[in-house]
Amino acid sequence: MNEHTVKRFEDELSELKAKVLAMGGLVEKATKRSMNSLIKQDAKRAHKVIERDHAINALEIEIDEMTRTMLALRQPAASDLRFVMTTIKVVTDLERMGDLAEDIAENMLKTGDHPLTQISSLQSLSDLVLDQLKEALDAFAKGDLDEAMTCIENDKKVDEKFKSIQREYLTYMMEDPRQISAGLIATNIARDLERIADHAVNVAEMVIYMVKGHEVRHVDHETAAALVNGTLQDET
Amino acid sequence: MNEHTVKRFEDELSELKAKVLAMGGLVEKATKRSMNSLIKQDAKRAHKVIERDHAINALEIEIDEMTRTMLALRQPAASDLRFVMTTIKVVTDLERMGDLAEDIAENMLKTGDHPLTQISSLQSLSDLVLDQLKEALDAFAKGDLDEAMTCIENDKKVDEKFKSIQREYLTYMMEDPRQISAGLIATNIARDLERIADHAVNVAEMVIYMVKGHEVRHVDHETAAALVNGTLQDET
Repeated sequence: MNEHTVKRFEDELSELKAKVLAMGGLVEKATKRSMNSLIKQDAKRAHKVIERDHAINALEIEIDEMTRTMLALRQPAASDLRFVMTTIKVVTDLERMGDLAEDIAENMLKTGDHPLTQISSLQSLSDLVLDQLKEALDAFAKGDLDEAMTCIENDKKVDEKFKSIQREYLTYMMEDPRQISAGLIATNIARDLERIADHAVNVAEMVIYMVKGHEVRHVDHETAAALVNGTLQDET
Repeated sequence: MNEHTVKRFEDELSELKAKVLAMGGLVEKATKRSMNSLIKQDAKRAHKVIERDHAINALEIEIDEMTRTMLALRQPAASDLRFVMTTIKVVTDLERMGDLAEDIAENMLKTGDHPLTQISSLQSLSDLVLDQLKEALDAFAKGDLDEAMTCIENDKKVDEKFKSIQREYLTYMMEDPRQISAGLIATNIARDLERIADHAVNVAEMVIYMVKGHEVRHVDHETAAALVNGTLQDET
């Protein structure tokens, strides 16, 4: 590649990254907004999340097309290829997170005239999940392994919180069968949040692959940490 | 590329396709087995699904590595590049379907000594979903647009069935609060099945992109059909 082509390729890589981060920003906003619609009992916000999901979907298609063009025309190698491969995987996760935020908004709308009352634990869960999402996006933005590992490790907290919420709402439903509909909605929302966290972990794992060239998908946290620290480097 | 390289590249493409289809076969088996564990109240089968999920995960990593190597060394263009891009997306969907089959098995195990009794509607849902999965994999295997469209269109039936199951179990739970735990498990399984169907639709959409070069993700069924039939070809 001549100097001009190299410069243009670098610009394209930056543009690609900026678009992924913009998509991540929309997903963060959609998740926050869907939870705020629930907390403030504000159906308008829920509708906004649903209306705006198309912008997230549009970015997915746009980014996928960019990566294809780059693969076809630039034939990136080594770390650039890893970056492009990571991007292809990450947009899929972000798109699903957008769908999940939309599902939270739809569940909020199902509450109708009977807003959910005991939502403090859902709020704490969403705080944890939003932190994880931020860590994943920061890790991607900066190629930061520490952020990526923090995101992966924090998933334990989310899983525990999710399980305790399921037990909590099961108790409400057993105590008062009039709470069953509300309980189902609340557990649906909790599950959506837990899955957003899973997708954040996927993003963090891809960042580790992008930076280190190691696969940490489907390995336990300890092995992932060892791979990141280099102590297991020779075995992969 | 010389003749020898072309031949080797073609062999690699065939091997890649065979691996994706093998992975799809494992996912079909896991889904069937998880539902059979429920129907036959056979915890052993549920455990088998959980134990064997690692084989699906391992194939994901293996296929991803193959696609990276091919992108780096072969620099595929045009339809070959579309095939490789499709593969990258499809394995992500298949891996998630494997996780969902595992979740069905885990939910089955939660029933413990109180097996679910009213499962005929869950069985019909899983029949629909397994058909869709087969259509998606056949579409991918043969690059068959008709199969892909059938898979996409059949999603309406799955969505309707899913909604009716949710209503059905809500009724059981309201009538008899002792059914709440079982009802939650059943609706979790229904949701897992519905999501497997969503992933099958993703695969079908990617097959259309692979064959026609058109994006049909995030468009309605009618537009997708028009794109496939070529009546909208010029507008994309």
